[in-house]
Amino acid sequence: MKPNFQKIIEEISREVLPLLGLGKVANYIPELAKIDPRKIGISICDIDGNVYSTGDCKTLFSIQSISKLFTLCLAMKLEDNELWNRVGMEPSGTAFNSLVLLEEENGIPRNPFINAGAIVITDIILGKSKHPSDSILKFMREITQNKNIKFNDTVAVSERKHGHRNAALSYLMKDYGNIHKEVEEVLNLYCRHCSLELNCEDLARASYFLINQGKDIDGKTVLIPRDVKRVNSLMMTSGLYNNAGKFAFEVGLPAKSGVGGGIVGVLPGQFSISVWSPELNESGNSLIGMKVMEMFTTKSGMSVF
Amino acid sequence: MKPNFQKIIEEISREVLPLLGLGKVANYIPELAKIDPRKIGISICDIDGNVYSTGDCKTLFSIQSISKLFTLCLAMKLEDNELWNRVGMEPSGTAFNSLVLLEEENGIPRNPFINAGAIVITDIILGKSKHPSDSILKFMREITQNKNIKFNDTVAVSERKHGHRNAALSYLMKDYGNIHKEVEEVLNLYCRHCSLELNCEDLARASYFLINQGKDIDGKTVLIPRDVKRVNSLMMTSGLYNNAGKFAFEVGLPAKSGVGGGIVGVLPGQFSISVWSPELNESGNSLIGMKVMEMFTTKSGMSVF
Amino acid sequence: MKPNFQKIIEEISREVLPLLGLGKVANYIPELAKIDPRKIGISICDIDGNVYSTGDCKTLFSIQSISKLFTLCLAMKLEDNELWNRVGMEPSGTAFNSLVLLEEENGIPRNPFINAGAIVITDIILGKSKHPSDSILKFMREITQNKNIKFNDTVAVSERKHGHRNAALSYLMKDYGNIHKEVEEVLNLYCRHCSLELNCEDLARASYFLINQGKDIDGKTVLIPRDVKRVNSLMMTSGLYNNAGKFAFEVGLPAKSGVGGGIVGVLPGQFSISVWSPELNESGNSLIGMKVMEMFTTKSGMSVF
Amino acid sequence: MKPNFQKIIEEISREVLPLLGLGKVANYIPELAKIDPRKIGISICDIDGNVYSTGDCKTLFSIQSISKLFTLCLAMKLEDNELWNRVGMEPSGTAFNSLVLLEEENGIPRNPFINAGAIVITDIILGKSKHPSDSILKFMREITQNKNIKFNDTVAVSERKHGHRNAALSYLMKDYGNIHKEVEEVLNLYCRHCSLELNCEDLARASYFLINQGKDIDGKTVLIPRDVKRVNSLMMTSGLYNNAGKFAFEVGLPAKSGVGGGIVGVLPGQFSISVWSPELNESGNSLIGMKVMEMFTTKSGMSVF
Repeated sequence: MKPNFQKIIEEISREVLPLLGLGKVANYIPELAKIDPRKIGISICDIDGNVYSTGDCKTLFSIQSISKLFTLCLAMKLEDNELWNRVGMEPSGTAFNSLVLLEEENGIPRNPFINAGAIVITDIILGKSKHPSDSILKFMREITQNKNIKFNDTVAVSERKHGHRNAALSYLMKDYGNIHKEVEEVLNLYCRHCSLELNCEDLARASYFLINQGKDIDGKTVLIPRDVKRVNSLMMTSGLYNNAGKFAFEVGLPAKSGVGGGIVGVLPGQFSISVWSPELNESGNSLIGMKVMEMFTTKSGMSVF
Repeated sequence: MKPNFQKIIEEISREVLPLLGLGKVANYIPELAKIDPRKIGISICDIDGNVYSTGDCKTLFSIQSISKLFTLCLAMKLEDNELWNRVGMEPSGTAFNSLVLLEEENGIPRNPFINAGAIVITDIILGKSKHPSDSILKFMREITQNKNIKFNDTVAVSERKHGHRNAALSYLMKDYGNIHKEVEEVLNLYCRHCSLELNCEDLARASYFLINQGKDIDGKTVLIPRDVKRVNSLMMTSGLYNNAGKFAFEVGLPAKSGVGGGIVGVLPGQFSISVWSPELNESGNSLIGMKVMEMFTTKSGMSVF
Repeated sequence: MKPNFQKIIEEISREVLPLLGLGKVANYIPELAKIDPRKIGISICDIDGNVYSTGDCKTLFSIQSISKLFTLCLAMKLEDNELWNRVGMEPSGTAFNSLVLLEEENGIPRNPFINAGAIVITDIILGKSKHPSDSILKFMREITQNKNIKFNDTVAVSERKHGHRNAALSYLMKDYGNIHKEVEEVLNLYCRHCSLELNCEDLARASYFLINQGKDIDGKTVLIPRDVKRVNSLMMTSGLYNNAGKFAFEVGLPAKSGVGGGIVGVLPGQFSISVWSPELNESGNSLIGMKVMEMFTTKSGMSVF
Repeated sequence: MKPNFQKIIEEISREVLPLLGLGKVANYIPELAKIDPRKIGISICDIDGNVYSTGDCKTLFSIQSISKLFTLCLAMKLEDNELWNRVGMEPSGTAFNSLVLLEEENGIPRNPFINAGAIVITDIILGKSKHPSDSILKFMREITQNKNIKFNDTVAVSERKHGHRNAALSYLMKDYGNIHKEVEEVLNLYCRHCSLELNCEDLARASYFLINQGKDIDGKTVLIPRDVKRVNSLMMTSGLYNNAGKFAFEVGLPAKSGVGGGIVGVLPGQFSISVWSPELNESGNSLIGMKVMEMFTTKSGMSVF
């Protein structure tokens, strides 16, 4: 009695068309602003590994903050214990790039999905890996089962150049002793992994281990079950910037979004789902992406709640 | 292949005994401070309506903030649309009784589970119900299937007398126009519903509709499925004061706690679970209660993630 | 070589006429909103006791927050030591009625001129005086040398009815143990002293002791010199709501303003000056009043700096 | 009937001896930590140009934040109008190096004496001067009438190396567009002027123009009278970090302090006074320095209030 995923996402693809034009493509860096806004891609990967897709599901896009999900997983593999002393696990209640809480809480970011937290995660990877860029790329290629995954260094350089606020966050944490490497080096790697380009199908596949107790489609362990629970819970409470509560409320899936217009969500034991549509709402989440997710859990009757 | 719930909770009951004495009973009102701290009760109600229990599962205790869960459900039945204009659905990132965000955000509380939000919910019930105390009592008796559920007015009066901070929250919201009734009247009703006394079995049964798409054991609709999703998501992101993230991270269930030492959690489609143990951790959650929940989801391998 | 005060204030009175209409009369309580906005009064009392006046200098107006200056002086006479444990002496950096700092700093208001601080001062007077209203009235009549000074109870009652935010501040401080009397009683007295009505000449005379090392015109001690320094310094750093820095910068006199449109300033050893004009700027200070003060110190070349 | 300044400061020098050892020398950079803590110097320069001194008045020390006073004056000479659009004139109510307000207020520092404000001032000097280091040095040598005034580049480099928080402030302001030059360049110059070394007599002389309506001892204009009022008012409301209110309250002079243990204060028309004693109180002000200032205004009966 499993719902017909293909039929549902085709239906949704048609129904969200009138929403094109209501959001705004990210324009804080020129490279992202160039994107064609009228794109909609959806992919689902079910627990048996079947993939269902519609629309622009094969077009590469900049995953931006969704990379925070994967670098967190990689860092959890590299560094088990110390990690949670350097970054928290509570929702922040403030903007993703705010400095206020960081100052109040002595340089320990609230969670790994706000910028400050993801920067600490990047610093950890830098400290634990000899070739950190390669490690990230290798990890991404493994979980997507796609050897063509690449960074987009034009985007990375452009982002680095405009990232004064991330520099401010980093120097503030360095002042508190929570950045160990040189700030320049950390920010370069951070901007690099944000520039990763995937398509919807890559993204759905890459998240498969999060619905399968940590094992990938070939049965190889990516994360232990305890850590899958942790990652999924962080997506649930903190994965969508200031819309985390609203997304849980309306959609009911652990998920992570990026300003490139992508969102990836998971229902453990059932499916992973990815959407891409570049126009953003005021909180920096894909406007159509959020709607697709809400319609999907409503039509399928499937959510964690 | 369903885990043996009875065996698991009996095991856990023994294993948490060494933790007795590590927390502190709530003492901000004399009535709560009188409780015997060495109490541990656990009850589970599965989707078929079977109840499994151990220890002090028949002893009444003050549910305190857990009442926010049930008054929210009642208010959602009484007032559909306006409710979410008057209270938000995002995690707060600050203490449950903080005034800071309330001031920044013009008197709209972040969610219905911080004190300010629950006070607005109480104000809504007051505005929609002719006999608000009776309505709350009737609702609680129906969902627990227990006609003996009562307020403890000694506790309510004691709490009212010490509730200067709740008065501050209420007057601040009144200043912003988000409390419609008289503050005195709202606070009296608020303290009254916080004083409700249930035992673990009542609490597990009362939450059955949240695991059964809104229907109680007799198949009667308490909430529509959309609203069940909303309530469960709010418990997930905001149900355990400042430990919401940590609880999701370690336990992975939507849940609501109270300073009386109770916690109730749900796994939609599977079970509701309640724990009571009066000693609290620094965030005001039952220290043993949180541990019991964590052990239960680990041993059973069952959580939303 | 003393400047010709009378000539200067007559000149200024003409020059500020074009500013009429640029500000807005306080309208948060109906009684204040009724005032004729086109009023301008100026009075100066020099160190020899000579009074120079222009315009509406004999018309009574509601001194509102200027009463905080005089109740502080009275409280300093009644309670020497404990006072500065219960209220601070630092500028607040936030709005006059903000709750944020109060919460961060455990219910100790930053200074006696923000609302919270003035409410604590009122609580102190209540605790030290058998007939607190009478004490305040007696003190005001003595320092103005005018037996007709009165409260305006219509204004006081109207203010009390709309004062939800002051209630919030008071209950928050009561929660921290920094309000000893009943909140209702404190707020009634607070609103009462805010409703005091004086004219410009009364106000200039009332402040004479602050330019004369604490002695009134008859040589009687109102405050000891150390306390005059303290009061004047508080006016300098915190007397004009969010314009304190700007006022010091442009005018350079210790001063206190009220939303009734009055401002009183002092130059120790030289003169006290009062202005009244009901139209306010965005910070709640008399728009024309601030300009008059600036022009006066510029034309006379006299300021503390 | 002028008080005997020499006698008073000699008396005070003896009376504060028991306070040696109660404060703590700044140790956040090694160079400052090396200083002999048991130093006390006092100098006064009266309106006629006479200098009165005691103790270690000829020993050079690092003026640190006192340089903010002189760079502000220099920037006011270089850039009249735009300056006050880029930095405010209100007391901050938070720590001197806090990022909170800066974030709330879009990168405009509250005043030129908190670090963020002084960094903007440095950026202005960089933008207006071809040889900014030389301009600062030349200005300092003129107002001290001492051609030997120098930077201490060992201190400057050490400070630069530990200045992660100042980098955070600068990048945050750059994000808001309020730093025009490269952050590295701004911070280098900032640390350089903080490393200026003067003795108490230099410092008292350097401030003479602030008591003489902007003219130095030779009658040459350093600042116009309007700007002297502005500078003195900023010292009064914001010159002593978190002790600004307390200092006004107890001392009653416009003043500026530095973590090197220096404080300089002025009484317009009468005298400038400088104190140096390296042990600091919890707010980073010279513990003995504050006491000397308080005793001096009390004994002489001279303050702006």
